[in-house]
Amino acid sequence: MKIDNSPARGTRDLLPAAVAVRDHVLSTITEVYGRYGYQRIETPALERIERLSGGQGGENEKMIFQVLRRGLPDRVEAGTELAELVDLGLRYDLTVPLARFYGQHRAELPTPFRSFQFGPVWRAERPQKGRYRQFYQCDIDMIGEPSMLAEAELIEATTHALNRVGLTDTTVRISDRRFLATLATEAGVPAEAQDGFFITLDKLDKIGWDGVAEELGRRGFESGVVSAARERIEALGQVPGDKVTDVLGEALPSLAEDVVADIGTTGSCLNEIGAVHGIRWEFDPTLVRGMGYYTGHIFEVTAPGAAGSVAGGGRYDNLVGRSLGTDVPACGFSIGFERIVDLLSEPRTSERLAVLYDGDVPTPTVLTTARELRDGGRAVAPVRRSGKFAAQLKRLEAAGFTAFVHLRADQDGLEERPLRGEN
Amino acid sequence: MKIDNSPARGTRDLLPAAVAVRDHVLSTITEVYGRYGYQRIETPALERIERLSGGQGGENEKMIFQVLRRGLPDRVEAGTELAELVDLGLRYDLTVPLARFYGQHRAELPTPFRSFQFGPVWRAERPQKGRYRQFYQCDIDMIGEPSMLAEAELIEATTHALNRVGLTDTTVRISDRRFLATLATEAGVPAEAQDGFFITLDKLDKIGWDGVAEELGRRGFESGVVSAARERIEALGQVPGDKVTDVLGEALPSLAEDVVADIGTTGSCLNEIGAVHGIRWEFDPTLVRGMGYYTGHIFEVTAPGAAGSVAGGGRYDNLVGRSLGTDVPACGFSIGFERIVDLLSEPRTSERLAVLYDGDVPTPTVLTTARELRDGGRAVAPVRRSGKFAAQLKRLEAAGFTAFVHLRADQDGLEERPLRGEN
Repeated sequence: MKIDNSPARGTRDLLPAAVAVRDHVLSTITEVYGRYGYQRIETPALERIERLSGGQGGENEKMIFQVLRRGLPDRVEAGTELAELVDLGLRYDLTVPLARFYGQHRAELPTPFRSFQFGPVWRAERPQKGRYRQFYQCDIDMIGEPSMLAEAELIEATTHALNRVGLTDTTVRISDRRFLATLATEAGVPAEAQDGFFITLDKLDKIGWDGVAEELGRRGFESGVVSAARERIEALGQVPGDKVTDVLGEALPSLAEDVVADIGTTGSCLNEIGAVHGIRWEFDPTLVRGMGYYTGHIFEVTAPGAAGSVAGGGRYDNLVGRSLGTDVPACGFSIGFERIVDLLSEPRTSERLAVLYDGDVPTPTVLTTARELRDGGRAVAPVRRSGKFAAQLKRLEAAGFTAFVHLRADQDGLEERPLRGEN
Repeated sequence: MKIDNSPARGTRDLLPAAVAVRDHVLSTITEVYGRYGYQRIETPALERIERLSGGQGGENEKMIFQVLRRGLPDRVEAGTELAELVDLGLRYDLTVPLARFYGQHRAELPTPFRSFQFGPVWRAERPQKGRYRQFYQCDIDMIGEPSMLAEAELIEATTHALNRVGLTDTTVRISDRRFLATLATEAGVPAEAQDGFFITLDKLDKIGWDGVAEELGRRGFESGVVSAARERIEALGQVPGDKVTDVLGEALPSLAEDVVADIGTTGSCLNEIGAVHGIRWEFDPTLVRGMGYYTGHIFEVTAPGAAGSVAGGGRYDNLVGRSLGTDVPACGFSIGFERIVDLLSEPRTSERLAVLYDGDVPTPTVLTTARELRDGGRAVAPVRRSGKFAAQLKRLEAAGFTAFVHLRADQDGLEERPLRGEN
């Protein structure tokens, strides 16, 4: 009988070597975020289906793993809608549950509340290389802070964490949704058409201005609108980030003063942060980001060797309020955990000692020997001697052991020998 | 509009203080198991429904959260069986996925394979106090080791880990499924009736011998059978654990020699372990354990203040083989993570410094001040000065801050002041 032991379609098992890399990255990020005062919380994997389908999740709402109600009859009654059979779903991100969490527990939480979340999310995407239906997200959020301190601290903490996991050559790209809306309005895009306008503009780095103009033309935007937007974007795109506020007023005369002031504050903070954590930053007027809930600054971090960004986030002042019936300012930053782990996938080596014991050594002696060797704080595991000696040493090395002792029944004293290279 | 922000029925949110306790327990257990050479693996939360419903999960198979197939039409066709709509389920334990994992990846894993798993499982139980529909399991398993070294090492590693999280006064109870089968056979219980016999015997510590005799009588067992079993159990129950092999032969003449030898080996190992880790152990002829897949030793750890056991496990030599078509010896131990966390729920305090800044301090100055204070390695978070000073200090203390500095625009030098007690 052939037994299929593969994991469910689109999911994967994680073997010890992969878990070791992931645990290292996670513990580094956790340590850094902890020093910035972010506190880890956890919400359940299952949420009520109404919460997940409320329109906050954008395209992700089409990819929910839906959970059947319990206690249904074995045969479905004629005329039943599929939706009637479902009451729960697996979360597709950590932001929708965070908004619910804050709504539920606000009275017990400080202001601002610095949240750190790490956990699996599920999306029923078409399986493809490097994309899985279960993957981990790693988010920090500051809830209740209206000032740019939130943006600046989130960016500092995240670039600091990325730095510590080995991504030292990063660039922070900044834009602002209010800036984008003003730009589109000045270029002649009516408010109700702006979402569609930005979906295409977001592709600029992939398809260039010709591609953007062609796609916008197909979507019914006049060529004058496109060239007006292009002109304003290019005027800003050439300017170094720390000079951007000087020319924002010229490029976009109708941009509100508080938006310019916010960009100025962020700029001076980023200059500080860059000097300490060695990051570059730039104002990128073409940065859009997908989620519709952003209301102010948006930002991404790029790193050499990583396609797309390794972290991204922004301000979302209305989302948490929907769970409370009152507006609550909020800003978040999500590290692309799976992408970073892929970048850092060289194996992590740690000292592991095998106690290779002959079959006639009494079990209590094996355990005592292992315990004494373990007392130095290292990993020690007994393995029974079997087969050809050299072949077994090869297998031990392949299993990640770095050294061994050979324990015989008749012997005093153990000689520890390395496994790497010699065999 | 009243918005329901509670988590889905039977699930719960974990606030920072609860997560801190859990993370402390987990990191302690992880560190100890790592030193014994156990390597963490991870399997997906979703498994194919056939795998979960294969009969290995006992009563848990009735509590599976079932996941709807993707791409179904909105309206269910007449005559559809509910089961046709489902292709996945959430795992209800970590052992069934481990057997699949080992079947899939055996060629890449060492022998024996020491596995450590920690992760959520889901059971659609009737919600009740202290029991949740999502909870964490924490398992170590040794796969591929036929000798009692597996049992002894699992018990040593687990009592060591429990010791380190503060459970120092524990007792290990040991029994063996082969011993139980011989006992039942000698008492006159036919093989096919033994599962039912043991389900009742398992209640001995709750309902006593009178209750057991009454229930067995109702279930059709003759009184002679019950008294024959009782006689043999009482002969063994009075004997200190380390003397038990001496009297096993007398009490159960037909018990196979290798079972006696195995119990003897475990006993001498446990005497070693008890001397080092300060644990007591006893042979408990009434210990049964629920899962039907056990084939040899079974064991539990009890601790003062904890109802039931804080850890349990045993040998299951046939379960992994079902995923491979060939027998593979295996033995596992599961720590009752949620129960232990409940026992240890006093808050964990760590140093947290608030930088209380006046509204007129420039944001870059706030960030720089926080960074300099953070360089000592501790948690530092800026909080804007607002409202009455004493009231805000109270709120900071309630939020877990242990000290604060007050940052004003016009000031040189900061005075750090404690938050505990003084305010």
